[in-house]
Amino acid sequence: MENFCNFKVVDYGGITFPKGFKAAGVNAKIKKNSTKKDVALIYSEELCSAAGTFTKNKVAAAPVIVSKENINNGYLQAIVANSGIANACTGQKGIDNAKEMASIAAKLLNIKEEDVLVASTGVIGVDLDMERINYGINEAFKNLSYEGGHDAECAIMTTDTVPKEFAIEFEIGGRTVRIGAMAKGSGMIHPNMATMLNFITTDVCIDSRLLLKALQSIVEDTFNMVSVDGDTSTNDMAVILANGLSGNKLIDSENEDYEIFYSALYYVLENIAIKMAKDGEGATKLITAKISNAPTKKAARCAAKAIIMSSLVKTAIYGEDANWGRILCAVGYSGIDFDTQSVDIFLRSKKGSIMVAQKGRGILFDEEIAKQILKEDEIFIDVDLNFGEFSAKAWGCDLTYDYVKINADYRS
Amino acid sequence: MENFCNFKVVDYGGITFPKGFKAAGVNAKIKKNSTKKDVALIYSEELCSAAGTFTKNKVAAAPVIVSKENINNGYLQAIVANSGIANACTGQKGIDNAKEMASIAAKLLNIKEEDVLVASTGVIGVDLDMERINYGINEAFKNLSYEGGHDAECAIMTTDTVPKEFAIEFEIGGRTVRIGAMAKGSGMIHPNMATMLNFITTDVCIDSRLLLKALQSIVEDTFNMVSVDGDTSTNDMAVILANGLSGNKLIDSENEDYEIFYSALYYVLENIAIKMAKDGEGATKLITAKISNAPTKKAARCAAKAIIMSSLVKTAIYGEDANWGRILCAVGYSGIDFDTQSVDIFLRSKKGSIMVAQKGRGILFDEEIAKQILKEDEIFIDVDLNFGEFSAKAWGCDLTYDYVKINADYRS
Repeated sequence: MENFCNFKVVDYGGITFPKGFKAAGVNAKIKKNSTKKDVALIYSEELCSAAGTFTKNKVAAAPVIVSKENINNGYLQAIVANSGIANACTGQKGIDNAKEMASIAAKLLNIKEEDVLVASTGVIGVDLDMERINYGINEAFKNLSYEGGHDAECAIMTTDTVPKEFAIEFEIGGRTVRIGAMAKGSGMIHPNMATMLNFITTDVCIDSRLLLKALQSIVEDTFNMVSVDGDTSTNDMAVILANGLSGNKLIDSENEDYEIFYSALYYVLENIAIKMAKDGEGATKLITAKISNAPTKKAARCAAKAIIMSSLVKTAIYGEDANWGRILCAVGYSGIDFDTQSVDIFLRSKKGSIMVAQKGRGILFDEEIAKQILKEDEIFIDVDLNFGEFSAKAWGCDLTYDYVKINADYRS
Repeated sequence: MENFCNFKVVDYGGITFPKGFKAAGVNAKIKKNSTKKDVALIYSEELCSAAGTFTKNKVAAAPVIVSKENINNGYLQAIVANSGIANACTGQKGIDNAKEMASIAAKLLNIKEEDVLVASTGVIGVDLDMERINYGINEAFKNLSYEGGHDAECAIMTTDTVPKEFAIEFEIGGRTVRIGAMAKGSGMIHPNMATMLNFITTDVCIDSRLLLKALQSIVEDTFNMVSVDGDTSTNDMAVILANGLSGNKLIDSENEDYEIFYSALYYVLENIAIKMAKDGEGATKLITAKISNAPTKKAARCAAKAIIMSSLVKTAIYGEDANWGRILCAVGYSGIDFDTQSVDIFLRSKKGSIMVAQKGRGILFDEEIAKQILKEDEIFIDVDLNFGEFSAKAWGCDLTYDYVKINADYRS
């Protein structure tokens, strides 16, 4: 996964960067008096191979239930999404409304209803106002364009402070292939999830079963390794549409072309994952926890997640306090097998790196240097277990006053 | 467990309320320049049946390792504890220092070293200054008294804002029996733990195996159902000493006397658990989550914990916002088996109760009444799953600006 040198990152690129994708985002006043965009439409000129991963929350929102059905045959051609209201905990009426969203989009686009994915994000337990939704989808349809990716992204943001888009191009068998992605995700982000709303478009030509295999595998290492607050939402999904317009030879086995595409998709999703962690609600610092030399991959992931999920680690990083005991403590309660007396811990940022614990014990270190390192806004916590050969990374953010402020009165 | 009417709660009672227990708490400047008490000594005039539960964190502190050995035979006569430094992640030197603490206390008290329990709480990864510890234990020994319970409690507090003590008396077979308890616990409190420092004394006469059985069972329903921030400390323990001085007939089977004692101990530990949740770091509100009609006891516990651990629920309660969707969402990701369309949710305080969701859907409720209910400082979240017959309660607190403040710079 380390050879990214042949991927060209495109400035300001998003989901309309790959060939044949149009999008739009409009304001339909889903939340009364709001002037922000809140209905997004994404459309591919060709039917796409499609794959998705969805929330594991037992309380899955209506659009999740409907979308899982629609994606089941491996094909999609459009995505319709709204922010403001999550259409979760809304019973049969919610299901009907989600289907109605797909139906409105399908009629306008002249495609099959089951080729439309539906997504919602926002307040739980409130019914959608279908008049506004209908208005929004019609407006979005009128505004569909090859430059509409950014508007679509803006329409799915809630407490996000910055848009999260990423696009690259690269070659497969002499043909230029493109991948674009956009994400909504700020609070309620947590592992064991397809993680928030995450839409990926590509013009690669690939079989949908292989697309699903790649997506599921990469999500494990990227979106499922991000945690902002430990809460797992009712609405999360990561969905990829591949329309084949790049003209590469159909990828229908795990050959070299598949490997290239896999690496490229990994690169895109890792970058989106980092953007989400960095924009965690109230966050001032991105935290990357890296576990090295764990006995299993699972143990490495588990320990890395425990660190970025620890409220005590998160507040210490916010306070720029090299309180490494809390880091070791989190590894300790993660439940993995390791030898406490072999653990080395380093804190790192672009200002440098400092060892703070060796063989499970504190060592004398220069607190002033540690402070300088922790003043940066991207902090790495490197934990070497010296107890195996597996590694994993997890991304999170500090816990701040603003997290509390944002979530103390979200509904009003 | 509901018949508490025969337990007399003693005002200002603590661990020296039961017969034959002395205690002291002194300032030994374990943390430089601190004027707070930081070394505690508890002593029973008779050898006690003893039982304990200890942290499941793989990174167990030195005093935990030493104390588990010492309590192994079922007997103890004294407890020595310090705050300020946790003596965790301190390697062999830490073990030696913990043993030395027991040894100093044992010599002064003229008892066996293995009859002394050792406990520490505070910063991880720093060695104890044994000169100060030695001074502290000697001073505490000189100050031992039948009224010293409160001083001992003060000496184990760290970020606690109020002392947590509780004592009751009741009758077994015509004899008056007493139980006293004290606890340290504010941050780093989380289920799957013996939970922080928790010392219980009683003058009941009971076999130590039965004492352990009762303690373990009750801890599951009380201390292990408290969570402040999801972090599981390296140093936690709950230990009970029973010296038999009440003169009741030895409880050596699960007879009626055992049942009475069990109920009494349950009552004490539940009250201490609530005190700990209420004094969670930065907390302004106590949250009690009650799950009813779950398919199993385990499922009920699991769902109740998920609610009180959710950062989104905790911040909503802080903001006095009846955001019930986050409550249902937490039950959803707890992993238990239930039917989302059978769930009823109520919010309650001494101001009244209001239903906010029925059969998994939001209902129209008076936001003003909900606001009045949530203004109180003790909030109950009642979730009826209508999917079985088991119940459980969990206790937590809101997540506030002050939690962040307290933990952002704990070491300095």
